[in-house]
Amino acid sequence: MKAEILSELITRNDNKIVFMVMDGLGGLPMDGSELTELEAAKTPNLDKYASEGITGMVDPVTPGITPGSGPGHLALFGYDPLEFLIGRGVLSALGVEFTLTGRDVAARLNFCTIDGDGNVADRRAGRIPTETNLRLCKLIRENVTLPDGIEYFLETESEHRAVLVLRGDNLGGDINDTDPQVTGVPPRKMVGEDDASARTVKYLNAFMEQVQALLKDEQPANMFLARGFAKFDPLPTMEERYGLKSLAIAQYPMYRGLGRLVGMDITERPETYEAMWQQLKDNYDDYDFFFIHFKKTDSSGEDGDYKKKVKVIEEIDEWTAKLRELDPAVLIVTGDHSTPAAVSNHSWHPVPVLLHAQHSRPDLVKEFGERPCTQGAIGRMATKHLIMLGLANAFRLKKFGA
Amino acid sequence: MKAEILSELITRNDNKIVFMVMDGLGGLPMDGSELTELEAAKTPNLDKYASEGITGMVDPVTPGITPGSGPGHLALFGYDPLEFLIGRGVLSALGVEFTLTGRDVAARLNFCTIDGDGNVADRRAGRIPTETNLRLCKLIRENVTLPDGIEYFLETESEHRAVLVLRGDNLGGDINDTDPQVTGVPPRKMVGEDDASARTVKYLNAFMEQVQALLKDEQPANMFLARGFAKFDPLPTMEERYGLKSLAIAQYPMYRGLGRLVGMDITERPETYEAMWQQLKDNYDDYDFFFIHFKKTDSSGEDGDYKKKVKVIEEIDEWTAKLRELDPAVLIVTGDHSTPAAVSNHSWHPVPVLLHAQHSRPDLVKEFGERPCTQGAIGRMATKHLIMLGLANAFRLKKFGA
Repeated sequence: MKAEILSELITRNDNKIVFMVMDGLGGLPMDGSELTELEAAKTPNLDKYASEGITGMVDPVTPGITPGSGPGHLALFGYDPLEFLIGRGVLSALGVEFTLTGRDVAARLNFCTIDGDGNVADRRAGRIPTETNLRLCKLIRENVTLPDGIEYFLETESEHRAVLVLRGDNLGGDINDTDPQVTGVPPRKMVGEDDASARTVKYLNAFMEQVQALLKDEQPANMFLARGFAKFDPLPTMEERYGLKSLAIAQYPMYRGLGRLVGMDITERPETYEAMWQQLKDNYDDYDFFFIHFKKTDSSGEDGDYKKKVKVIEEIDEWTAKLRELDPAVLIVTGDHSTPAAVSNHSWHPVPVLLHAQHSRPDLVKEFGERPCTQGAIGRMATKHLIMLGLANAFRLKKFGA
Repeated sequence: MKAEILSELITRNDNKIVFMVMDGLGGLPMDGSELTELEAAKTPNLDKYASEGITGMVDPVTPGITPGSGPGHLALFGYDPLEFLIGRGVLSALGVEFTLTGRDVAARLNFCTIDGDGNVADRRAGRIPTETNLRLCKLIRENVTLPDGIEYFLETESEHRAVLVLRGDNLGGDINDTDPQVTGVPPRKMVGEDDASARTVKYLNAFMEQVQALLKDEQPANMFLARGFAKFDPLPTMEERYGLKSLAIAQYPMYRGLGRLVGMDITERPETYEAMWQQLKDNYDDYDFFFIHFKKTDSSGEDGDYKKKVKVIEEIDEWTAKLRELDPAVLIVTGDHSTPAAVSNHSWHPVPVLLHAQHSRPDLVKEFGERPCTQGAIGRMATKHLIMLGLANAFRLKKFGA
């Protein structure tokens, strides 16, 4: 839906929308079980919500497409992930909770080893310990400066991974990776595809040359390879698009960053699920929309650990029982993509979803699981529509047309 | 999905995709039976695939639209039929297995009868026998030439129907039909809507004038009416779009032509289903994607022959049992549109589909039929997405976004 049309429909009230994201929720049968992780898990609370509400299956991007975390979450927030493209560099900056501005170009850097002939000997510098990364980044920040008032920010991610942000006027991010993807050849030269990007390459070259001189006696990390240059274009906020004052409650930096990307406030990093619940309760009166992110469904799926994922789902199911106390106008539970333990990776499979609200119109589904959800009233639709269902069920959308 | 985004996601491996098209598969209850043709047919093999895999209903164009063979197949190949428009002249050329180039304008010609006053007396020249058509086309080819090095190709289709292709630089196909649709009036004058088309009309007039002079003593076929002028714009190939080396196994020229249109190789025309199986086996190692076309579901439907269509489906079901021997990574079975015997024509009804793959995530459906498929995990979606599901299940798509 076009932003101009949507903005005409938005209205505000006190109805709360709680949007629970179980990262990588969707699964597959595995190891002789005919059930997916969610189907195998004992989830009396989610089943009750599903039974009272409506269910369905959602495609984060389009059928068949396996989404990264960025596109998966943009879709959940109602931003079409084929329209709002988030570069890898920007994602990396979000992942270290760096707050980007509209004057920034971000890139993911990997410490690497360059041999005496100037060729890449190790693209990851032997996966140096994070402590080495921290020490070298500090050294660089203290010694490397850029001309023309261009600022830069260099942040350690972990091991060999870091993030570089250049800040200045009229910078561009249409720049190729320097990572040649193979060893035994030199890093690729950077080329900017337009004037702003060509100008940015000048500063990047100044940065890289100083780094190379500074680290020439370091081993194994004596240089950077750069990937995923991206200019940051600030997105319209949830407040601007939907009139929703929004709060993100998430334990992991990437998801906190994704919340901030669409203008959400962020709580202090919660250490436990109990802390997440406390934060929700403490902030409940001050916000309209709550993005609550649970990571471990995804990480256990990525580990190929079917049993662990089942257990994680059961823990989160218990957590959802607490929500009855707040009784939000709308509760939506889904994932940003599927991560079946059987695939040990993000996958293309659609994601089960439940929506619970006073007037959600019950369907025939009594359980929250992939098979039951194929029979639900939501049917199979694009994830980006969920926010509209949330707004509607919260009576936050006016009639379209007379 | 935009081609630029898609091309970034494509990856190659040895996983095979078999795409079985039962032309006009979808049906309706008829003659007191409560079952559609597919539901009435005994299809133990397709039922087993459906039970192990996922099912659904697909719309070749959009809900309510009855597709011709062109749009129906483009959708199956993942080319949005509302974006890739194939003119009737181009379809006619494909139907005689004529290989078009980017310098060609094609049109469908009908032999007609013009009376002494220059009016159309019979728009189909009494449906002359195909032999007469062949004789007259040969006569024309031997006597009619065009100026400026413009080539033409004139091919008999059947009865009064033929195909004309003009080949040259800067030709255009935005030209009206000359068929006035009624008798007693002269053929309509051709007008080109742009410079290239106007220039093309000059050559078409030269062609038509020579034909009229040459056939002036013939009866009843003494002239042509032309319809469906279309410039041929070559499509991106399946290899270019999806990285799929593709083979078409089809008995009928139109479908062989549609395969060629998207860059597929074509086998020798197989006389029998057994020959189709042999061709699949013999070529299995050399291709990634196999388009296998079965025509008789459609022709029996068009004949209004419910029982025949049931029998045809049962024969094809037997054929599918052989596929277990090859065990392709992905098997998709569907149709290009519905052709219910009850309608004796193509129809707008969505088409049942099944997808069978190791990780297709089972749904609740145990039978391949219109009613069961409404309950399947694929849900109801546009046919154009099927190729993406095929690629995904063959692990031929990388993750979108970080």
